[in-house]
Amino acid sequence: MLSKEQRSYIAGFLDGDGSIYAQLKPNLTYKFGFQVVTYAVLFQSKKNQVNFERLCSMINLGYMRLRKDGVLEYIIGKNKELKKFLEIVRPFVILKKQQVLLMDQILTKKEDIGRKKDFKFLMKLIDRFRDLNYSKKRKKRILTP
Amino acid sequence: MLSKEQRSYIAGFLDGDGSIYAQLKPNLTYKFGFQVVTYAVLFQSKKNQVNFERLCSMINLGYMRLRKDGVLEYIIGKNKELKKFLEIVRPFVILKKQQVLLMDQILTKKEDIGRKKDFKFLMKLIDRFRDLNYSKKRKKRILTP
Repeated sequence: MLSKEQRSYIAGFLDGDGSIYAQLKPNLTYKFGFQVVTYAVLFQSKKNQVNFERLCSMINLGYMRLRKDGVLEYIIGKNKELKKFLEIVRPFVILKKQQVLLMDQILTKKEDIGRKKDFKFLMKLIDRFRDLNYSKKRKKRILTP
Repeated sequence: MLSKEQRSYIAGFLDGDGSIYAQLKPNLTYKFGFQVVTYAVLFQSKKNQVNFERLCSMINLGYMRLRKDGVLEYIIGKNKELKKFLEIVRPFVILKKQQVLLMDQILTKKEDIGRKKDFKFLMKLIDRFRDLNYSKKRKKRILTP
């Protein structure tokens, strides 16, 4: 059980140098032709590995990965764990507030996709997410029947 | 007066994507031939300007600057303000704990430099700071008489 201070620290860390990520990946093995990829990542230089591992074991919801360029990534990918992570930071996050709220909607919808119109709604949520994160030109997506 | 949660949020933000910085700049107009440059910086992409300004006005100890590459910097440079900033984050900072404690020593020593041996001690503190921040080859410095 994390204290309020631990939770707001994590929220600050996420706002400072973390990512919340929602993306549609074309994949014909999936029901509607797309895989919904959702995760949160925290980054840190390898030289702070010891303390960064301390922080991440406090969160205890993901796994650590070392990139070739010497940057550590703490990745929270599983739906259940990502939902817990959003629970932790939601009251305290400032810069990524909208992403957190939207991601929560996305995860809830993800568990509940029956028909094509559900998936179209999910696609709209993910598009809104991309608007929050990116101001670049966006790809148009076609739903594979 | 900031709450504990606000303080730990700021500590998390600093640990995620901030810098605490101590450097000696050769400058013959200074008593011992060096200017002691100390500051803390928080960074954020320009696209989060509104919320980042909200966060920084909460801290209320520095000034904002926009870099050419579209990154905002909130810079806390004055000794008094930097000391207050360290006060805010010290109990909650994790990854930059050593830098915070060492910077505090540096700032205290900075206000109290009478003789050459005081300055030599200050140079040692700053060297230790560089060791914490950088693992690259370091320049040797010669004290100008």
